[in-house]
Amino acid sequence: MAARKHATAEEMAMAQKEISVSEFFAKNRHLLGFDNPRKALLTTIKEAVDNSLDACEEAGILPEILVEIDQLEEDRFRVVVQDNGPGIVKAQIPNIFGKLLYGSKFHSRRQSRGQQGIGISAAGLYGQMTTGKGPRIESRVKRGKAHRYEIQMDFTKNKPLITQDEELDDWHQSHGTRFEVTLEASYQRGLRSVDDYIKQTAVSNPHTSIRYKPPGEEEPRFYERAIRDVPDRAAEIKPHPYGVELGELMKMLRDTSSRWLSGFLQEEFCRIGPKVAKEIIATAKLGERSYPTRIARDEADRLYRAIQKTKISAPPTTCLSPIGEDRIREGLMKECDADFYSVSTRPPSVYRGNPFQIEVGIAWGKPGDDRLEVDDKGRIHKTKKKRGATDTEDLLGNADEPVRVLRFANRVPLLFQQSSCCFTKSVIQTSWKNYGMSQSRGAMPVGSAVIFIHMASVWVPFTSEAKEAIAPYPEILKEVRLALQEAGRKLGVHIRKGKRVTNEFQKRSYIEKYLPHVGIGLQEILGLDDEDREETVERLRESMETTRKI
Amino acid sequence: MAARKHATAEEMAMAQKEISVSEFFAKNRHLLGFDNPRKALLTTIKEAVDNSLDACEEAGILPEILVEIDQLEEDRFRVVVQDNGPGIVKAQIPNIFGKLLYGSKFHSRRQSRGQQGIGISAAGLYGQMTTGKGPRIESRVKRGKAHRYEIQMDFTKNKPLITQDEELDDWHQSHGTRFEVTLEASYQRGLRSVDDYIKQTAVSNPHTSIRYKPPGEEEPRFYERAIRDVPDRAAEIKPHPYGVELGELMKMLRDTSSRWLSGFLQEEFCRIGPKVAKEIIATAKLGERSYPTRIARDEADRLYRAIQKTKISAPPTTCLSPIGEDRIREGLMKECDADFYSVSTRPPSVYRGNPFQIEVGIAWGKPGDDRLEVDDKGRIHKTKKKRGATDTEDLLGNADEPVRVLRFANRVPLLFQQSSCCFTKSVIQTSWKNYGMSQSRGAMPVGSAVIFIHMASVWVPFTSEAKEAIAPYPEILKEVRLALQEAGRKLGVHIRKGKRVTNEFQKRSYIEKYLPHVGIGLQEILGLDDEDREETVERLRESMETTRKI
Repeated sequence: MAARKHATAEEMAMAQKEISVSEFFAKNRHLLGFDNPRKALLTTIKEAVDNSLDACEEAGILPEILVEIDQLEEDRFRVVVQDNGPGIVKAQIPNIFGKLLYGSKFHSRRQSRGQQGIGISAAGLYGQMTTGKGPRIESRVKRGKAHRYEIQMDFTKNKPLITQDEELDDWHQSHGTRFEVTLEASYQRGLRSVDDYIKQTAVSNPHTSIRYKPPGEEEPRFYERAIRDVPDRAAEIKPHPYGVELGELMKMLRDTSSRWLSGFLQEEFCRIGPKVAKEIIATAKLGERSYPTRIARDEADRLYRAIQKTKISAPPTTCLSPIGEDRIREGLMKECDADFYSVSTRPPSVYRGNPFQIEVGIAWGKPGDDRLEVDDKGRIHKTKKKRGATDTEDLLGNADEPVRVLRFANRVPLLFQQSSCCFTKSVIQTSWKNYGMSQSRGAMPVGSAVIFIHMASVWVPFTSEAKEAIAPYPEILKEVRLALQEAGRKLGVHIRKGKRVTNEFQKRSYIEKYLPHVGIGLQEILGLDDEDREETVERLRESMETTRKI
Repeated sequence: MAARKHATAEEMAMAQKEISVSEFFAKNRHLLGFDNPRKALLTTIKEAVDNSLDACEEAGILPEILVEIDQLEEDRFRVVVQDNGPGIVKAQIPNIFGKLLYGSKFHSRRQSRGQQGIGISAAGLYGQMTTGKGPRIESRVKRGKAHRYEIQMDFTKNKPLITQDEELDDWHQSHGTRFEVTLEASYQRGLRSVDDYIKQTAVSNPHTSIRYKPPGEEEPRFYERAIRDVPDRAAEIKPHPYGVELGELMKMLRDTSSRWLSGFLQEEFCRIGPKVAKEIIATAKLGERSYPTRIARDEADRLYRAIQKTKISAPPTTCLSPIGEDRIREGLMKECDADFYSVSTRPPSVYRGNPFQIEVGIAWGKPGDDRLEVDDKGRIHKTKKKRGATDTEDLLGNADEPVRVLRFANRVPLLFQQSSCCFTKSVIQTSWKNYGMSQSRGAMPVGSAVIFIHMASVWVPFTSEAKEAIAPYPEILKEVRLALQEAGRKLGVHIRKGKRVTNEFQKRSYIEKYLPHVGIGLQEILGLDDEDREETVERLRESMETTRKI
């Protein structure tokens, strides 16, 4: 092989150039959840549904979502996601769907499903890369006309190119948005499928009704809403002082319109009043009337360190919109037919200045088994279990399998990267034996149960752009563990009671079985006639049932 | 709580805005390997050293690297990384160090350590966010003056702001670059530390000399180069047709300067000559003289599918620069003092159109144990083991611990995310029992050994921007497994031979010990005198050693 030419600094300089964020993610698409055709289908639907639900809730509308998948060729599918949300203003459509890192949620400190401004345009880009076709969007705002756009992304510039722009005189809804994309994909059922995702979305969003048409089915499946009120719109909060780093603080000082340092602290942050501002400024050895824009790095550093030393109350939690215990219970009851439900909600907490709240629900039971019930008189009956109404496939597994953990972040189901998720680590670290479940060291507990875990936060620290798992911050790990323990204790009481009932039932079966033989024995020993024998057996049975009443 | 105001589509539109890539990564810095202060220190050094080594090799210079860490305060450190590379042209310095997604390696199809244009500017940004200070860069190109820049990044615009710009009349090197940054960090020794990284870098880059000064040490540690030639500069290749997707193909058709389709195929791709071009065009039912820029989506789709159906030879492998068996062996011998070294290099292979090559080395031995050696005459000697020369800490673990896997991508050590890495999966999937090592099902093999695995590729599919683990593409998994099996077989021969030697040695000890007693027994039975007894024992010993010769 010929020796290869070496480069000079000047030649190397000529090769330097900007990389557009869409080129970057097109080449690294597995970072966004488009690793393979199966996952691409799920990610596309997930991003579109996230946006639809966020929009409906922001506008105070009870969401009605349609998800439709059609198979066009062996490896090509068309996906439609439609909502009854407020619609999107015409001028914003191309950027929202055709530009990565564009959106309203990144800069706001408010709980929402989307947070990065990448997802939906990445889905469009994936469609374009694999089939050459960009996404089609139809949208109508209240008292406006509907518009249809078709978009191609110029991925070397991260800019949308409009290939079709049409006003629609007639549209089938008074407001809402319809997103359509053709992509290389594959459809499968089972765990981590689109079916699974839709079902879990119904559990964590009981106020939402979803129609879902998988490929090859004629009629959509219908997931009806369980409750009729829209969750409160989460409030937006200012940054909490503890969550702001020195570099950001310096930028805030440069950019502020406040003229005095004291005013700057009170206006730009939450939880700083005049007294706290005074204390911070004194600790930093600065003047309350200093001009914020003139504060140099060293002074900013003192201010930063003074903030860390000052006791400041936790951020307000109006920015959070938890699901709530009743709704979690209803969601679980609707989708898993269990014997027992235990729900627990933690008070809000904070990591790196970001408020968050953990909610946990456990559904416990043995689907397919007969149920033992005790009536008012202490009699035990066997009853056949009812099956889940909505779907044939129950979320509950078998008694000898690891429990299933349903993970949610701001109501969005997380289906991948389970083992690297903070939630999974918390489940494994909890001692489930204390609550009557079996568990090997360092492993998931075993049993016919579903554990539901939800984190509501203004900023969820995902381990990747694909938003599949939550980073194990110590504060989050701890809150999840406490919530699991609370729910676990309630479950423990139930399991132990259930074990008593089962034991009792077994004892009574023995009595039923052996009492006649005891009777025959007595008859022989005491010389009873048949009638006396029957009566003795009956009295014996009554006496035993009475003394053993539960 | 008061009911919260809902938003209209118009209000929501006003909140929509662009997110800069540096804002995005500042908020999601764990994606880039800045999860915590300890990892931030390592990532900063790793990114700077990667760039230094790439620059030296591109320019054909034997790298001399200096890495210096100084502790300024409890949680603040200053890092200096300096090289003797070609230097950086003045005008490029601000963008290279102060703009994310800027560089020369993303668009080139050539093996290099850096590939994304994010790392070094992210390190500067992290320093700025945590300490308020941006990076300082000094650089000098051959026959030029040295320059010093200090930079702050405007992270809402992803643009560098120059805060100091100085020409240096005198600089201590005739060419090279010095990068300095102050950051919040923590320094620890041990596994996955900076020390560990430097040591592994020396193993995978035996042509590099590194001086490394950890905090608190007066004199730098010196890792001297083992070989004196620079690796060949990898050639740049055109894309392989199998690795190009429809969306990219359409863009290439639009952008090409070729006037005819046949010319387009031959000029823009590797491995397409006139014959293959003709075949592709015929399969696609297009004309050889079609204008590429006028090809519509449906025709492009036909072209795309025709490419997939045509047999095209694998891409050239001149773009790869593997380490080589001898260098791997030398690197391993330099840093681990083992009994046996087994190295294996696979021929180049391809995934998604990207050429790659896998190299494996195994160092095997029991440090601290005495060594058994067999001389020419078949006599066994015990010798004391020499300890590693360079460092007190040997890479080899104990015999009852899992083997240590050293993972490298384009010569860069990968220290984190071991369990999600394709290499680790391959090691676990290999049956090490066949080669004389112990291994439980689904676990790492156990033994005093180091397994070195290197992937050289024009594009390494990392699982995150932090470049910590390699995605498990089936083609890569397979090549790693084959390389491990080859190296394993050689090791197996050695281990079995070692076991024979040990057994033999034990048998001989028995003979040494019991032969005198046998002599006394014979003396009594046969009535020998002392001299006859001694002679008999001696003849017995000789006879046994001869028949048992190895």
